Amino acid sequence: MKRAALFCILSLLAGSIVSCTDKTGETTDVTVLSSPGDVLQMTFALDGEGRPYYSLDRGDTKVLLPSGLGFELRGAVKAQGLEYDGDKILKPDEVPPYMFNDGFKVVDVSTSSFDQTWSPVWGEESSIRNNYNELLVCLKHTSDDKLMNIRFRLYDDGLGFRYEFPGNQSLVHFVIKEELSEFNCAQDNKVWWIPGDYDTQEYQYATSTLTGISKVFKAHTNQYNSSTTMYSTTGIQTSVQMKTPEGLYVNIHEAALVDYPCMHLLCDGTRIRSWLTPDAQGWKGRLETPCNTPWRTVQVAASAEEQLASRLVLNLNEPCAYDDVSWIHPVKYMGVWWEMIAGAGSWSYTDASSIHLDSFDYASAVPHGHHSANNANVRKYIDFAAANGFDALLIEGWDIGWEEWANCNKDYVFDFVTPYPDFDIAALNEYAHTKGIRLVMHHETSSSVRNYERHMEAAYSLMNKYGYDAVKSGYVGDILPFGEYHYGQWMINHYLYAVTQAAKHHIMVNAHEAVRPTGLCRTYPNLIGNESARGTEYQAFGGNDPEHVTILPFTRLNGGPMDFTPGIFEQNLKDWCGNDSHVNATIANQLALYVTMYSPLQMAADTPEHYAPFMDAFQFIKDVAVDWNQTRYIAAEPGDYLIIARQPRQETLSGSAREFSQGRDTWFLGGVTDENEREFDVALDFLGEGDYEAVIYADAPDAHYKTNPQAYTITSKTVSAAGTIHIDMVPGGGVAISFRKI
Amino acid sequence: MKRAALFCILSLLAGSIVSCTDKTGETTDVTVLSSPGDVLQMTFALDGEGRPYYSLDRGDTKVLLPSGLGFELRGAVKAQGLEYDGDKILKPDEVPPYMFNDGFKVVDVSTSSFDQTWSPVWGEESSIRNNYNELLVCLKHTSDDKLMNIRFRLYDDGLGFRYEFPGNQSLVHFVIKEELSEFNCAQDNKVWWIPGDYDTQEYQYATSTLTGISKVFKAHTNQYNSSTTMYSTTGIQTSVQMKTPEGLYVNIHEAALVDYPCMHLLCDGTRIRSWLTPDAQGWKGRLETPCNTPWRTVQVAASAEEQLASRLVLNLNEPCAYDDVSWIHPVKYMGVWWEMIAGAGSWSYTDASSIHLDSFDYASAVPHGHHSANNANVRKYIDFAAANGFDALLIEGWDIGWEEWANCNKDYVFDFVTPYPDFDIAALNEYAHTKGIRLVMHHETSSSVRNYERHMEAAYSLMNKYGYDAVKSGYVGDILPFGEYHYGQWMINHYLYAVTQAAKHHIMVNAHEAVRPTGLCRTYPNLIGNESARGTEYQAFGGNDPEHVTILPFTRLNGGPMDFTPGIFEQNLKDWCGNDSHVNATIANQLALYVTMYSPLQMAADTPEHYAPFMDAFQFIKDVAVDWNQTRYIAAEPGDYLIIARQPRQETLSGSAREFSQGRDTWFLGGVTDENEREFDVALDFLGEGDYEAVIYADAPDAHYKTNPQAYTITSKTVSAAGTIHIDMVPGGGVAISFRKI
Repeated sequence: MKRAALFCILSLLAGSIVSCTDKTGETTDVTVLSSPGDVLQMTFALDGEGRPYYSLDRGDTKVLLPSGLGFELRGAVKAQGLEYDGDKILKPDEVPPYMFNDGFKVVDVSTSSFDQTWSPVWGEESSIRNNYNELLVCLKHTSDDKLMNIRFRLYDDGLGFRYEFPGNQSLVHFVIKEELSEFNCAQDNKVWWIPGDYDTQEYQYATSTLTGISKVFKAHTNQYNSSTTMYSTTGIQTSVQMKTPEGLYVNIHEAALVDYPCMHLLCDGTRIRSWLTPDAQGWKGRLETPCNTPWRTVQVAASAEEQLASRLVLNLNEPCAYDDVSWIHPVKYMGVWWEMIAGAGSWSYTDASSIHLDSFDYASAVPHGHHSANNANVRKYIDFAAANGFDALLIEGWDIGWEEWANCNKDYVFDFVTPYPDFDIAALNEYAHTKGIRLVMHHETSSSVRNYERHMEAAYSLMNKYGYDAVKSGYVGDILPFGEYHYGQWMINHYLYAVTQAAKHHIMVNAHEAVRPTGLCRTYPNLIGNESARGTEYQAFGGNDPEHVTILPFTRLNGGPMDFTPGIFEQNLKDWCGNDSHVNATIANQLALYVTMYSPLQMAADTPEHYAPFMDAFQFIKDVAVDWNQTRYIAAEPGDYLIIARQPRQETLSGSAREFSQGRDTWFLGGVTDENEREFDVALDFLGEGDYEAVIYADAPDAHYKTNPQAYTITSKTVSAAGTIHIDMVPGGGVAISFRKI
Repeated sequence: MKRAALFCILSLLAGSIVSCTDKTGETTDVTVLSSPGDVLQMTFALDGEGRPYYSLDRGDTKVLLPSGLGFELRGAVKAQGLEYDGDKILKPDEVPPYMFNDGFKVVDVSTSSFDQTWSPVWGEESSIRNNYNELLVCLKHTSDDKLMNIRFRLYDDGLGFRYEFPGNQSLVHFVIKEELSEFNCAQDNKVWWIPGDYDTQEYQYATSTLTGISKVFKAHTNQYNSSTTMYSTTGIQTSVQMKTPEGLYVNIHEAALVDYPCMHLLCDGTRIRSWLTPDAQGWKGRLETPCNTPWRTVQVAASAEEQLASRLVLNLNEPCAYDDVSWIHPVKYMGVWWEMIAGAGSWSYTDASSIHLDSFDYASAVPHGHHSANNANVRKYIDFAAANGFDALLIEGWDIGWEEWANCNKDYVFDFVTPYPDFDIAALNEYAHTKGIRLVMHHETSSSVRNYERHMEAAYSLMNKYGYDAVKSGYVGDILPFGEYHYGQWMINHYLYAVTQAAKHHIMVNAHEAVRPTGLCRTYPNLIGNESARGTEYQAFGGNDPEHVTILPFTRLNGGPMDFTPGIFEQNLKDWCGNDSHVNATIANQLALYVTMYSPLQMAADTPEHYAPFMDAFQFIKDVAVDWNQTRYIAAEPGDYLIIARQPRQETLSGSAREFSQGRDTWFLGGVTDENEREFDVALDFLGEGDYEAVIYADAPDAHYKTNPQAYTITSKTVSAAGTIHIDMVPGGGVAISFRKI
């Protein structure tokens, strides 16, 4: 493949076309686009074989070298005379290539600019600027006149591009064999990555250079002894955070993933390309024109803090699709959950090994006696949550079928409407409502997705009947039907279906094990949360390394909030319930996560009993808001540390957070560190005028995430914007501070 | 494998156990069972390796030699250390064998007898006797104590057996790799067969010996140039009709196919074994104990007429599952259908090549002008159907999306509720109802089955709103998601889901392209019809050989009625609409099909214009009933001819059939022949006492299905039970006679 543009003197005018000469002496028209503030520059061109490519620079620094664009599509899928003298349907690897990444000519080029400020329904800030210069390149495949456009949006903080297939052309229904978008990195960047996998994102991060990924891949992934669907020892997931030798932070992800396979990446040295999730036959997307792909995003920031402040992924999503969003609201909640995760209780009600839902007689079955979602236990949680100003309480394991929820590949595994005999759905909701608590529904699907869709309308209607307005859904296990993957187009379509059907019932969705977010919460803000990464639960499954929470905001949270479920105060699970896993975090670290791990749906994950001895520290969880007016990224380095300060959004305050912040200027600061102790002096210039009372929840000097995680100090002092606060964080520690204007 | 039983003197006492000595001198306990009338005898035994097998005799004639039973199950599906140093999920062909067809011991044997007479909601007769001797063999897999029972039911007209997996054992959730049921034919039988195919049954029949199948397979299947999913050149479908050299008629099929893959067959010489339909990964069924397989049926009859009279498949199904069946009724209908099949009209409304259902503006789209389901045309059909005493009118192509119904693999292809602009659903239903006609809904799914299920509730509700009580559903094209097949467990589950959901709305279902029936209409009698074979539509797609309709009653109809859509009066499609295909049947032959091709849902498929010149012949279609009190199989040989007489069931008469038969003894006779002319003298001993007026619709002497298909004679005469009627049928011809007591 010939590459041009390297030897051009690039014009910095948006959309200008300059003639360049490549190595071979051929002349190529290169289109150049600059970002609104002239921070980033990109080029687009076709090479001598009609291959489209682009490049990306930040001033004098090359970020992406010329990188290919396009597809291999499914060609003829039938062959004559191979078997039975009739046609034979070919498998993907037998189909002759139909390349849609060369042989193009440019039929039109246009540019435009856009600058608009919008307000999310909830978010890290109440106002977001969406400002880009756009380049639309219209291409024709010369051999067959098929049309494809590529739309580039260049921001000061990054690039987005997508493929658009116009209507009224000969390309109508088509199947993708592979998307061939390249991200050809100019340097051997440092990378924080997790392995590409069609079915799970629940990994800790490895750190290496791009060229070093394959060297550490096996060692890193060896720890995961569950079955996996990784595809290559250089395969990684998005959002992936990189750092160039020059110190630029470069992040590759996607935005607005709708009815298309989730994009993974495949690294060939420093040349990265897209690797879509296949279907059961190996195909990678069925499309119909007019249509477009999701946006492919390349964020470029001069610092880690700038990367965290980027709203590029949200900006590339469509505006809110709902006229009425009054029913969508942030939620601070507790849950009958951690005791089952840790092993102190159970989701199931009996020890039966085989349950036919329509005929099994639970009423006369012998309960095993450790079912957590029982009336008395739920009331205990309701009482605690209500007494401490929470909004809601999640209860898992309330519905029949949990005896076979995992590893059974069972089609009719749940009906989503029938409670266990010891869960009085009517009485418990009524009791909760009298105390100002909403119950949060739980729909574990066990990845029997057709079964979920068959029962979805009845399940959502049941929620309406009893006053639930939020559901946590789960997709544990192999997808049924066999052969489909969690991140294939089939499932991407399902996840959004579940969200939009929920919206008709005014229900908010928090989907676990679903695909990683790509900013869709802008368009569908009832997608109030997602797991889609390795969350706190793994503290009970062997533990998370302390650095994990310093990386997630750069990667997983780039696409949307995570229901990380922080707030574990009892790190010793062994004494509690015999679980050998240790929670690798100090209490101060756990408090900080309410600020550093942004989510409008924020959990206090531990049990009332575990909070009881530490109610002074618990005060921070009560006070902290979950929806924000402003956010400041004070200090950050992925894998090392993170300090963030946020100012609540007055309009969405509720419960105990409203008590603390309503009508007063307040700020919350969270800081976390990895396995190393760290100290910072934080300038308080984010505060407004006047004095603030700061309450500092800090690691005690002798605290340590492994040996002394529950040692903390709480101090109050009066501060102002002109001052600083000194922060000390122990290994695996953190700090949480509330500021309230006096 | 050692085989015993061959050298035993079989006891004819039901369930008796005799000790036999096999070739090697080993002693084996063989259990022997006889049918109630001692017509058939079977044995069951384990061989020296603990392999279960059975055999079947009819008196001195061996039907099945010792035939193996059991399964290969999915074994360990993960292997350590193959890739990425973690677990790797194995593909079916990599999984080590887990044989579940040897190593058994018998832990219990019990026998019982059953004799009951029951009445179907509709059928070929109003009363059916279910009389069998039963043998239940309880087996334990000695290596792992897993349990499997085999239940045999031996009738005078055949054998049914199924596998039952009891609960409360170590086998709970399991996956089938292959079912290993054998049908080891004692002779090289003659076979009327169609190729085994995972996605279609729409074939003409080949005739060969068992050992000759592979020799003619390619030549026979070469005519089908559409893509196929055949699996072997000795793979065939059930229900398959065989004839032994001694003249016994032996038929292999299955009964009560519920949530299990459809069974095909694989022939190895005269040894036939089961071959289940795989899922996308190649597995062949997920089960959970307690559970059972469908019944495997082996019907044995001394004559072709006896085979047609067998009710074994229905008898092996469960009784009706519905308390209230008052809403289920036979239907004689016409349809806005044949004109689209032939090419004179269109299902679609526009020539658009890409339709996004949610945004395409049909109201302002330019119609192509040949959309058949338009208000004026539908009213014309309503008028004709009402004037001639029909019950209902099917209208296809009424709903938006037909522009892309075929070959698009489109997910959201129909919404099943939005009519085209020229189809006034409210007004047309109202108009029809005022004339005593019900409209029949049509749901083509294009095999986008998830999309259908998502819209099913709304679609059925729409039917309720407008007074439809029957739906024809269709499954044309590749199943979505890719990799699933029409006859895999995933789809078998769906078809019954559609039927049981319809029942909640009091809707009858006539599913086309769905799996072949297995008698489920006994349990779910709102499954009023199925296509599931090559029907009349192929007369417009190249034609059907005349013999086709002489074979279908032995094969396809063995499991339940077929919506064959007879009644084509205009065989020359070329002059009508430029279609080169010729309808290979005389008008008399078409009339006969209303008797020979049993269905409680019977169509007059041609257009009002084509019937108009032949209203004297059309009178038979008006008079004939569609539900029967008694049936007599007068003469039959598959591939050659078929003569059947039926007496209407008074309780379900409607429309013009009621006018003809109500309160009077009537009979209808139909006869068809293949490409050869034939004559018969038919004894009328099925008539009651007294005289009857016979109206004989016969081929004219110079009629011929190719050259002169519209030549017929109509004669009336007075007859009685003591007399005979002489029948002459021309090539591709037939005869239809109505008898009415004077």
